[in-house]
Amino acid sequence: MSLKIARRGRIPPFIVMDVMQAAAQREAAGESVLHLEVGQPATGVPAPLLARLAEEGAGQAMGYTVARGLPGLRRRIARHYQETQGVAVDPERIFATAGSSGGFVLAFLAAFEPGDKVGLAAPGYPAYRHILTALGVEPVAIPVGPETRYQPTVEVLENLGARLDGLIVASPANPTGTVIPPAEFEALIGWCEANGVRLISDEIYHGITYDGVRAPTAAGRADDAVVVNSFSKYFCMTGWRLGWLVLPEDMVRPVECLAQNLFISPPTLSQKAGELIFEETDYLEANVKRYAANRKVLLEGLPKAGFGAMAPADGAFYIYTEVAHLTDDSVAFCQRMLAETGVAATPGLDFDGARGHRFVRFSFAGQTADMEQAVARLTDWLPKR
Amino acid sequence: MSLKIARRGRIPPFIVMDVMQAAAQREAAGESVLHLEVGQPATGVPAPLLARLAEEGAGQAMGYTVARGLPGLRRRIARHYQETQGVAVDPERIFATAGSSGGFVLAFLAAFEPGDKVGLAAPGYPAYRHILTALGVEPVAIPVGPETRYQPTVEVLENLGARLDGLIVASPANPTGTVIPPAEFEALIGWCEANGVRLISDEIYHGITYDGVRAPTAAGRADDAVVVNSFSKYFCMTGWRLGWLVLPEDMVRPVECLAQNLFISPPTLSQKAGELIFEETDYLEANVKRYAANRKVLLEGLPKAGFGAMAPADGAFYIYTEVAHLTDDSVAFCQRMLAETGVAATPGLDFDGARGHRFVRFSFAGQTADMEQAVARLTDWLPKR
Repeated sequence: MSLKIARRGRIPPFIVMDVMQAAAQREAAGESVLHLEVGQPATGVPAPLLARLAEEGAGQAMGYTVARGLPGLRRRIARHYQETQGVAVDPERIFATAGSSGGFVLAFLAAFEPGDKVGLAAPGYPAYRHILTALGVEPVAIPVGPETRYQPTVEVLENLGARLDGLIVASPANPTGTVIPPAEFEALIGWCEANGVRLISDEIYHGITYDGVRAPTAAGRADDAVVVNSFSKYFCMTGWRLGWLVLPEDMVRPVECLAQNLFISPPTLSQKAGELIFEETDYLEANVKRYAANRKVLLEGLPKAGFGAMAPADGAFYIYTEVAHLTDDSVAFCQRMLAETGVAATPGLDFDGARGHRFVRFSFAGQTADMEQAVARLTDWLPKR
Repeated sequence: MSLKIARRGRIPPFIVMDVMQAAAQREAAGESVLHLEVGQPATGVPAPLLARLAEEGAGQAMGYTVARGLPGLRRRIARHYQETQGVAVDPERIFATAGSSGGFVLAFLAAFEPGDKVGLAAPGYPAYRHILTALGVEPVAIPVGPETRYQPTVEVLENLGARLDGLIVASPANPTGTVIPPAEFEALIGWCEANGVRLISDEIYHGITYDGVRAPTAAGRADDAVVVNSFSKYFCMTGWRLGWLVLPEDMVRPVECLAQNLFISPPTLSQKAGELIFEETDYLEANVKRYAANRKVLLEGLPKAGFGAMAPADGAFYIYTEVAHLTDDSVAFCQRMLAETGVAATPGLDFDGARGHRFVRFSFAGQTADMEQAVARLTDWLPKR
C-alpha cells in the first residue's frame, strides 16, 4: 500500500535547477557553457585559511557547539557591524545558523503562527514563499516594478489591501539587485512598528554594492525586526552552510530552543572558518571589484545585444532584464538561448509567477572573461533568432 | 510595541543543556568534571583525512551541491548497505541531509499533515516530539519499559488506543541503547504496512552494538518506510552536520523540493569527508571497542555503586538506569551528583516526561579512564549521601 505525501511537501521545484541540469548535459557532451545562471561566488575561501583549519582541527573531536554558535564567532560578527555600519549589536542577540536558509526556518517558526500572512516582493527569492508555505504561513505577494525600483514602499503597503503579520524585505534584492534607500528603509521600519508587523530584513547581499550605494541594516535600529545574513555571498563560503540572525531580545530563547531540536548546531568547522574569513578583507574586496567589472560588461552589453529594460543593479550579482519584446515564455527562451549559444540564465518565472515569463535573470558572480564572451555570443544571436 | 512569539516557538529546552552549563561552570572554576552527559564521540575524523580535504579543496569555490548530495557520497552509502547488511539500496533513494536533524525535518514535512498523529516510545529522543510539535504534528507517547525491553511491540501498538499516521522507532535507541530483535522488527514493519502507518526508522546508532547483537535495518525491506541515519555517531563526524535518508520512491521528489528550499544542500566539505570516512574502518572499529570496554566498566560498576535496574544496553553508548530507590527527582539528583562528585549525567526527564524523574542516563562515549574514575567516585559517594 502506498502512503500519502503531505500537501505541504508539494513545493514546486526551482526552475533554475532544470536550467542547471540542461547546462550540465551540454557540458557533458563537450560543449561550452557560460554559467550566468548560478547565484553563488566563483571563488572560495583562501587556501591558507583551509590549511590552517585542518591543522588546528587535527586530532580534535569537532563535536556539536552550543545551538547559537561559538561565542568568538558571534562576537566577531558584532564587531563587523561596528566596523562596517557603525552600529552596536549585542552578541547575545546574534545567532549562528545553518546558512540563511536555516535562519529563515527558525525565524518563521518563532515569529509566525500557522495561517499568518507575510508580505514579500514579487519578483523575489522563491524559497521565502516555499518555506512559509511548508510551515503553514501564507505568503502575500507584493507586486513591485520599476516605479518603486522593484521594492515595497510604505505607499505600496498601505494600498495592499491585506492585513500582514510579517514583511520580508531584501536589500540588495534577488533577482533585481536593487537596494532600498536609507530614508525609505527607515520609513518601512516605522510602518512595521506602527502596524505591529514583524519585519524580516534579508541582508545576505550586504557588502556587495556598486557606484557608492550602501545598503542600510535593520540591526541595531529596529528592535522587533529579525535580520538574516549569510556567509555565502560576500564571504564566499556558500557550501559551508553558515549564516546568522540578529534577533529581537525576546526571540533569542525561543529560537534557541527551536534550533536545539531542529538543527542542534551549525557546522563546527564552518563556524571556525567564519570567524577567520573576516580577516580576509583584501581578498573579499577584490571579488567585489571583479563583480563590478562584470556588471559593467553586462550593463553595457545586454542592451546593445537587444535585451530590454533592466532593474537598477545596485548590489548583489544579478541583472534582471525584460524580454517581453522577445518572448512571452522566458522558460522556453532560456532553453533556446542555452541550446543555441551556451549561455545559461534563469527564467524570471522562478521569482515572479505572475510576470516572470517576461523576465530573465543573469548572474555575474563568475569570471569577467565569461561575461564578455556571453555578451559577444548574445549580440550575435539575438538579432538572428 | 513588542510582537508576539509563535506558540510553536515555545519548545521546552533540553534539560541536559543545563547540566552541560553547570559542568562548564564547574570546570571554569578549576574543578574536575567527568563528562558522562554528552551523547557524542570523544574522537573526530583522522588528521590525515582532514589534511587531504584541505589539500583537495585549496583554491576551489566549494559551492552548493545538488540538494540530495554528491552522487559519489550517495553511491558510497549504498555500497555500505550492501557490505554491512547485504541489502541492495538504490542510490536514487538515498538523500544526504544536514545531520539526522535535517533528515527528520524533511521526512516529517513530506510525510505528515498538520494534525497527524505520530507514535514514539517514551523514553525516547526528545527532539522527535519537539520537531513534530513545531511542525504541527501531534506526538503520541508510547510508554515502554523493561517488559518490552523499552521498545514498542505490535502488542503495545494494538493496545495503544490511538489511530497513528506514523511511527518512529529507534534501534539502538537513545536513551536506553536497546535494539529491536529482527523478528519483532519484521513484525513492526508488517503492522505498519497493514495499518497504513508511515514507519520512520531511526538507525543513527547502527554500527555501535555489543555482544554480537546486530540491529536490523528497514532499508531495502520496507518500501514505505523512511530510514534516518547519521555520520555523527559511528562515523564520529558530529560537528560536520551530515546524515542521510533512505526514502520511499514516491517521497524522493517531494523531499528534494523541500530540501532545495529549506536547506539548499548539506555542507559540501562534510559530504566529501563523509565519502572518505567509510575507508577508515580500523579507526572506527577501534572506537567501538573502546565503547565496549567503557560499557563493561559501567555495567559492572554502577550496580555495585548502588544504582538500580538498567535497560539492556545492546548498542549506542548509553546506560539508562533507575534511581527510584534513591530519589523522586532525577534533575535535583543529577545536580547534586555533579556538585558533589564532578560526574555529569543526564536526568531521565529529557526523555520521558512522565517517568523520567526516576531515571538517569549515563553516556559512555568518552575515555575508559573517565568511566573508571566515575565508578570509583560514585561508589564512594552514593552510600554516604
